[in-house]
Order: sequence, then structure tokens, then C-alpha cells
Amino acid sequence: MMHFDFNNPTHLIFGSGSISRLGKQELPGKKALLLMSGGKSAKISGAYDKVTAQLKEAGVEWAEFAKIMENPLKSAVMEGAAFAKENGCDFILALGGGAVLDASVAVSAMMTNPGDLWDYVQGGTGKGLPLQNPGLPIVTVTLTAGTGSEINFWGVISNPDTKEKIGFGGHPSLIPVLAVVDPELMRTVPPKYTAYQGFDALFHNTEVIMSKGVNLMSETLALSAIEHIAGYLPRAVRDGNDLEAREHVAYGSTLAGMTMQLTSTTAQHSMEHAMSAYHHNLPHGAGLIIISEAFARFFIERHACDRQFIKMARVMGIPEAHKPEDFITALQKLQRDCGVADLKMSDYGFTPDEFMTLAKGARAMQGGLFAANPCELTDVDCAGIFEASYR
Amino acid sequence: MMHFDFNNPTHLIFGSGSISRLGKQELPGKKALLLMSGGKSAKISGAYDKVTAQLKEAGVEWAEFAKIMENPLKSAVMEGAAFAKENGCDFILALGGGAVLDASVAVSAMMTNPGDLWDYVQGGTGKGLPLQNPGLPIVTVTLTAGTGSEINFWGVISNPDTKEKIGFGGHPSLIPVLAVVDPELMRTVPPKYTAYQGFDALFHNTEVIMSKGVNLMSETLALSAIEHIAGYLPRAVRDGNDLEAREHVAYGSTLAGMTMQLTSTTAQHSMEHAMSAYHHNLPHGAGLIIISEAFARFFIERHACDRQFIKMARVMGIPEAHKPEDFITALQKLQRDCGVADLKMSDYGFTPDEFMTLAKGARAMQGGLFAANPCELTDVDCAGIFEASYR
Repeated sequence: MMHFDFNNPTHLIFGSGSISRLGKQELPGKKALLLMSGGKSAKISGAYDKVTAQLKEAGVEWAEFAKIMENPLKSAVMEGAAFAKENGCDFILALGGGAVLDASVAVSAMMTNPGDLWDYVQGGTGKGLPLQNPGLPIVTVTLTAGTGSEINFWGVISNPDTKEKIGFGGHPSLIPVLAVVDPELMRTVPPKYTAYQGFDALFHNTEVIMSKGVNLMSETLALSAIEHIAGYLPRAVRDGNDLEAREHVAYGSTLAGMTMQLTSTTAQHSMEHAMSAYHHNLPHGAGLIIISEAFARFFIERHACDRQFIKMARVMGIPEAHKPEDFITALQKLQRDCGVADLKMSDYGFTPDEFMTLAKGARAMQGGLFAANPCELTDVDCAGIFEASYR
Repeated sequence: MMHFDFNNPTHLIFGSGSISRLGKQELPGKKALLLMSGGKSAKISGAYDKVTAQLKEAGVEWAEFAKIMENPLKSAVMEGAAFAKENGCDFILALGGGAVLDASVAVSAMMTNPGDLWDYVQGGTGKGLPLQNPGLPIVTVTLTAGTGSEINFWGVISNPDTKEKIGFGGHPSLIPVLAVVDPELMRTVPPKYTAYQGFDALFHNTEVIMSKGVNLMSETLALSAIEHIAGYLPRAVRDGNDLEAREHVAYGSTLAGMTMQLTSTTAQHSMEHAMSAYHHNLPHGAGLIIISEAFARFFIERHACDRQFIKMARVMGIPEAHKPEDFITALQKLQRDCGVADLKMSDYGFTPDEFMTLAKGARAMQGGLFAANPCELTDVDCAGIFEASYR
């Protein structure tokens, strides 16, 4: 509990309206690759206009690459890096949600390194080579409250050729130098995605609390994050313009970026990445919600970390919590309050014969996270969690 | 409450025994200025042997400058910088308590900038010029749990010619790149200094909680820090070898480095700096203890931030606290439990005719902190706090 490495060099500017401060910061280059999704979220939210106005104020040019999709593909990363090189960009401004932020880490690396992204991916079929050159600097402006990726140097990239979805990153040069988290830019996220993303943020923190590697600092930050997400997510889902609610959820989401640097998440995340690697239409947050109850029950039944579950329940609306099952009660209520209690694996095309394939896929793609589980979780156990979650 | 700038780029390695990891880190130069106090604390604690062994392991040379005193003087800073230049040092390894860590910020700046330190000091009689060149990188190994200076870029330097004691720093190059906080190195700090330093750390956090500029993140960190300092400082004072207690106090002290980056402390710190500027024999922590009760009472009587005092009392051993005065009760008990309830200003040579001089000195030297007070505090009010604290 009393050993930790805190290493979060990103300058984080947090608060409603804070995008108006971007142009006054010292930006890390003269021409930005403005990396965005293929959708219209940056334009609808007004973020695009605000960010480009700030770049003008800073005297920085930009070239736009707006082709990043949910669960970003390796092909988009490679295309984005080639586009940036052709256009002489010397840093990335990643404007978007988790997909864009994740992609920015990989694009940054491929702007300065030869070959293919999978040459540098650790795990799965990746070749695991070290980067030859540091990536180019990244500035992030997040449009969602979910991944915490705005302040970390990991991105999850999908490779349909190999049916893999793997985290890439970890090189010091890939840590964003500056992150602007402005909850006003999140008003137009639709309710369903507000919920999915909010639960992703929640589970980053709950997994840190369950993790074998939890320490005093990560626990302090993660419990604060859980309290604010659980307390305000239902309001943010109900009314996207409830700025106070958006602020508290964004706070919890960004803090998760720090808690995950301090302490690894658990295999809940590996398991979901296998799910959406095999069923690309499944949003990451939805997959996490689907397996979350059975995942927690597995460890509760084994008394793997009773006190940690009780601490979480206490900040999730049950101050008198005294048994680990109270966490399940709080989680179920939060899912109902956010309208996501009825998600079904079968709606996304899953069939019962896949459970062991998913279990093995989780370990093959992100086996490292299994070491953080509070007790052993075998492939058979994993398959059992998928089975218990199946509807 | 919902706006903040988090900017703590120092890589912090925290935990008992963590000094053994120093040699495996990428150090920022080839030859260190090993900056230490003139006392023997680094040798008695074993820290000197451990740190030099780690430097050897890293293949780094060093030159020793062991002349930093409590309340470090400008003259020592200038001499240290000249020594470093003569010896071709390209970074600083600051090994010591608050005085050494504070001095390292100023030495770093004067290793690369012409003229006198006071040319670059803001406030008081300082000329307030901007630094012409970035300072050289700083690595810190703290031997005390008090200042939080191991992860920030401010140092308080005394100038006897002008009777000033002023904070210097704030340039991004002066933030330590690496900080090792190893509570095992703190075992030999004598009980009296353990208490003084621990209260300094406590007040960094209590002042942040009282501050007008408190935000959700600084409050989360500061309340955690207060809980652990208040819970464990009496044990660390009683038995310096109680490593568990040392760990919790060190955690609270280092967290203060982050809370102070997020939110300014209040005028309690300005007032103490005036006290020890005029009475150089007064340890900083002792001065803070002497005025702390009257300082808090001033704001409690004016209902300036009742809820904040209650929150602090609740983590200081009074979970049922419901009125701001409960903070005073908790503070008094902690002072008694640490054997520092009977400190007297008169023992350090103060006389009642100095109160207004001290009040004016506090504002002249660190007037900026007054803006963080939760309500107005005039010179007359300040003098009144000194008077109420006088014994």
C-alpha cells in the first residue's frame, strides 16, 4: 500500500470554459495535425470552432485528418501518420473522445518511426520492437468523459487482420504535454454514450481499487473519482446540458488517467477488449457494463478484497455499507439510474459457444492485466463470467 | 471548486527502500552537484552512503557542497552555484531536508544565470527580473517529511542584509525531474524536528483547505494528507524507528507538494516567514505551530469557511465533527500528543512591541498569499493574531 511511482507530467487544465486558455499556452510546435473522428461531434459541440480559433490566436497552423473511428483501426493510424508527414506537422492536437485520443498515441509514434505499428506492439502478434525515435508531442482536447486517455500514453488499437485489440504506448514521448478538459464541450454527447463512457471511467477506478497493486495515493484518487461519477452520472445522462453534472463526471474520468498510471486496472478491461475485438459493433463501455456485475461477484464470492468493495459502496451512495455485496447493490442501482441495466450480449451478436474463445482472447491480447486481479482468474473462470453475464 | 491546473511533472518514487532504485533511473546529467546541509544528518541516516552508491551504479560523478544551513542564506546559494560551475556539474542532486531542497532551486538558477539571486527575486527588495536561462535539472532525495519541496519549484531564501525571507522559483526548469521519498531515510530525525516538520506539512494542507482557491482535486489530496499526518505524527515523534508512522507522515508531506501546486497556501505561511526572518533561530515549523490556533480562530470567528474546518476535524480524529471549533479541539490534541503545545514566542526572543512590524513584514515579503485567505486579514488583524499567540 505504501509504495508508488507517480509520473503524470501532462499539464492538465480542467474546468468549464477552459478551452479559451489553449491559445495562451506555449504549444509544442508550429503546425498541428488536427486529429478528429469521422463523425460530427467536434462540429456539433462547437469544439472545432473554439479549438481552431485558439490555434489562430497562438499563431499555429494545422492540417486536418478526420478519419478516426470508434475502436480505431491500425489502418487509420498508418494513414493519419502518413498524412501528417506529407503535411509537415510537428505535433498532434487530438480533438475527440477516447478513440481519437487513443489513436493519437499510435499516430505520434508512426510519424517518426519506420515500418508498421504492429512492429512496435507488445503482446499478441505484435513484434514488440522498441521505438527507434521518440514520437512527436501530443496536445489533447477531450470531448468525452470516459477513457482518461487525455493524460496518458496508452491507446487501444484494433487490427482486424488478426482479430486483435491491443494497448500500444508506454514511451515517455507519447505522454500528452498538455490536456484541456472542458466539460462545456461535452454537452452534446448523447445520453447513451454519456452512460457508456461514464461507466468506462467508473470501472477504471473500481478496477484500481480492486487491484492487487492499489496504493494509498491511487486509492485516494480513485475513491474520489468513484464518488463523483456515481453521484453525478445519472444527472449527466438525463440532461446533457447539466453542466455541474458533466463537470463532476469529467473530474472522475480524468482522475482515472492518474489512478491508472499509479495502479494497473484488472482483467475486466482485458475481457471487454476481447469482446469488442470479436464484435466490433460493441461500444467498450457497454461491454464493460455487461460483464461488470459477474466480474465483481467472482471476487466477492472468493473474499478476495472485501474491504475494498465496502469502501467503494460507501462512496457510491451506501454510507453504511458493511459487506462487499453492497457494492453490487450500488452498481445495479447506478446502472438502472443511467438506463443501462438491460444491455444484452446477444443484441451484439454474441453466442454462448464463444465464451472460451473470448476468455483465451482476453489473456492473449492483454494478459498483463490478469496479474492485477485480487485473486487468480483462470480461463475457465473468465468463461464462467461471460456465461453468467449472458442474456 | 471545479477549475484547476494540475502541473506536477516530477517523477516521484515513493516508499521505504526506494532509494535503491535511484541508480536504475535515467539521471539528467553526468556530474552531480551533491548539495547537502552542513550538519551530519545525511551521514547519520545512512543516506549519504546509499545515495553515493546509487550514483556509482549509475556511472555518475559528483562534487559535494555541504554548506546549506536551516533557513538557507542567499550567500550559501551564491557560493554553491559558483562551486558547481567550477566543478563542471551539469545537474543537482539535493540530499537533505527543506533547507537543502529549497536552496537547490535557487542554486540551479544561479548555475546558469548571471548576477545576484536577488536580481531575480519577486517581491520585497528583489529586482524581479526574469531568468535569462533555464536552470540545470534537479533530482531530490528528501531526508525529512515537511516541506513538500522535493516536488516543487519554490525555495524560501533568507537575506540577512535586508532582513527578508522570500520564496524564489516558479520557472519550469526548476521543477525537480525526479524525487525519491524513502521514509527509511527519515528514521534518525530527532523527535522535536519530526514534530516541527510534520506540522509544517500539516499546515500546508490545512491552509489549502482553508484557501479561497481550494478545488475538488486539491481538497481530495489535502484531506487525505491531513488524515495521515494527524493519524501518525504522534507515533513518528514518539519512536523515530516506527517506519509505518514515518511512511504515512511522508505521504502527507509529499502530497502537500501537489496540493500547493493546485492551490496557494494562506497568509499563515507569510506570517511565519516574517517571524523566522526576524528571529533566525526559530524553526519554521515551530513558528507555524505557535500562531496556528489563533490564525484558525480568526477565520472561525468570522465564519469564513465553516464547512472546510469541519471537513478537516472529521479526518483529524473527530468523525462526528459538526462545528468549525472542532478543528481547534483536534489541533490542540495533536499538538499535545506531539509534545509541542507549550512553545513560546518569548523563548525565541520575541517581544510584544514587534507585532505590527511582523505583520507588515509578512505582507511585504509574501503578500501574495493574503489573497488566498478565506476573508480579509488586515495588518491590524495579523498583529492581533501574533498578540493572541504570544506567551
